[in-house]
Amino acid sequence: MARLVDVTDVNDPRLADFRDLRDVDLRVSLEGEHGLFLAEGAKVVRRAAEAGFTPRAFLLQPKWVDGLADVLAASDAPAYVLGEKQIAEVAGFHLHRGALASFDRKPLPDLGTLLAKPGKLRIAVLEDLVDHGNVGLIFRNAAALAVDAVVLTERTADPLYRRASKTSMGNVYSMPWTRARGMEDILRALRAADVVPVALTLADDAITLDELAAMRHERLAFVFGTEGAGVHKKTEQQVDHRVLIPMEPGVDSLNVAAATAVTFYATR
Amino acid sequence: MARLVDVTDVNDPRLADFRDLRDVDLRVSLEGEHGLFLAEGAKVVRRAAEAGFTPRAFLLQPKWVDGLADVLAASDAPAYVLGEKQIAEVAGFHLHRGALASFDRKPLPDLGTLLAKPGKLRIAVLEDLVDHGNVGLIFRNAAALAVDAVVLTERTADPLYRRASKTSMGNVYSMPWTRARGMEDILRALRAADVVPVALTLADDAITLDELAAMRHERLAFVFGTEGAGVHKKTEQQVDHRVLIPMEPGVDSLNVAAATAVTFYATR
Ligand SMILES: C[S@@+](CC[C@H](N)C(=O)[O-])C[C@H]1O[C@@H](n2cnc3c(N)ncnc32)[C@H](O)[C@@H]1O
Ligand SMILES: C[S@@+](CC[C@H](N)C(=O)[O-])C[C@H]1O[C@@H](n2cnc3c(N)ncnc32)[C@H](O)[C@@H]1O
Repeated sequence: MARLVDVTDVNDPRLADFRDLRDVDLRVSLEGEHGLFLAEGAKVVRRAAEAGFTPRAFLLQPKWVDGLADVLAASDAPAYVLGEKQIAEVAGFHLHRGALASFDRKPLPDLGTLLAKPGKLRIAVLEDLVDHGNVGLIFRNAAALAVDAVVLTERTADPLYRRASKTSMGNVYSMPWTRARGMEDILRALRAADVVPVALTLADDAITLDELAAMRHERLAFVFGTEGAGVHKKTEQQVDHRVLIPMEPGVDSLNVAAATAVTFYATR
Repeated sequence: MARLVDVTDVNDPRLADFRDLRDVDLRVSLEGEHGLFLAEGAKVVRRAAEAGFTPRAFLLQPKWVDGLADVLAASDAPAYVLGEKQIAEVAGFHLHRGALASFDRKPLPDLGTLLAKPGKLRIAVLEDLVDHGNVGLIFRNAAALAVDAVVLTERTADPLYRRASKTSMGNVYSMPWTRARGMEDILRALRAADVVPVALTLADDAITLDELAAMRHERLAFVFGTEGAGVHKKTEQQVDHRVLIPMEPGVDSLNVAAATAVTFYATR
């Protein structure tokens, strides 16, 4: 059972995991250094615990102690209890949902392990997607629409970062994922595992998503590109198909998270 | 040709349209009272002008004067030119894209007029969606994926509000839309125009989206519900079909914008 600790001083050093949540640079270095991540909101906190991550500490408004009773019961991490205003002072802004927890990260699986499952396989590859909100939404789509795993390039935003886990509704914790150094490594691993790599792009020689779906590939990996420039030209040349979601004239592109939803749905 | 005006004082009353952009309450009342809306970013500003909205004023960093030269040439609104830091002082925060413009709103079309087009018709109905970002993304999906018009209930967030037009990539200006008092009025108008209303929901008696697509309805209206509670129970009972996008076990729901992308794509 987690120890409930009433905190009186917002500067208490034991609250270090929960400080200045909006300072992205600080958080990235803090979370990297200590191998931790932060979950916000009772639902997301519960999801992380259920997925087997070990809580380091909780920071809760009194009203959330009951709501998370089962999660607290299963952990022996300290649970710091503090008022709404004081939590805002620690976190650096007002939280809509006054429940936070920090967890230990786990080592990421091998790419080869993620691709080892025989038979039908659907992989999403995120090439340099820097927006945490989009990364989280894509994990939510992947979990809902039968994707087996997500592979990130080195520059893609951290799925366990607070904003990403929030937009994912906690699906980042249960969806298998890993990070690879670059597209070369990813494409090599995909081919070695008999997975057909395709890129979602607006390229002139693209086939349509319906055409791809009609091919009924058993093992497919979809590469999605950044909001700005899209999939890198080199990657486009190396995949087996460039694939377009046809759009009405005058529209530039879909948001990348919307593009993933359509792609996963059409190729289930 | 727009008059270029070098401003020296950030408190200049002529900059009133551009003040305190993050103060939602203030902006909603200001924009309502003066019948204006604000566009942010050169691309979104251009889209609004191209869609035929009349500029009231521009507020630009010097570097954007050239980039928007054609838009400025076609208008006789004043263009206030100000440095990056000063624009941040007026707007109340640092803008990534130092180009802003205010425009006059136009009266909204009749719901009947939007539904008058004979033959194939696709309508999106947004029931009480309060998140501006989601509303913008849905307009982008609607424009890309062949939806003819969007209908909003009274409580749904304003598509012309800065954050919505931004996530829509300016597609809120060209997509026909209107607002109706409540679902009763909307459902009556849809039926009068031979449009079949369906609701996207997680209801137990829902048919699947594939089943709906297979019915090949010529005229369809899709009702989407809020992030929190979803489509109102009463609305669910009044539509012709409740429609589910099947999901893997353990996932609660899709984000509403993702749900629209899948729905529009599957029923084009
Ligand atoms: C906002 S888009 C980037 C658009 C970029 N300007 C381009 O030309 O590719 C972000 C990503 O979403 C996916 N995407 C968006 N719309 C798409 C469409 N209609 N067809 C295929 N992929 C799309 C692609 O993977 C793209 O890299
Ligand atoms: C986040 S969901 C709301 C979920 C809500 N808890 C419920 O039970 O309906 C927001 C909206 O997206 C749409 N939506 C999300 N996932 C869906 C799915 N799998 N099937 C049908 N509609 C879905 C619905 O219109 C829903 O009202």
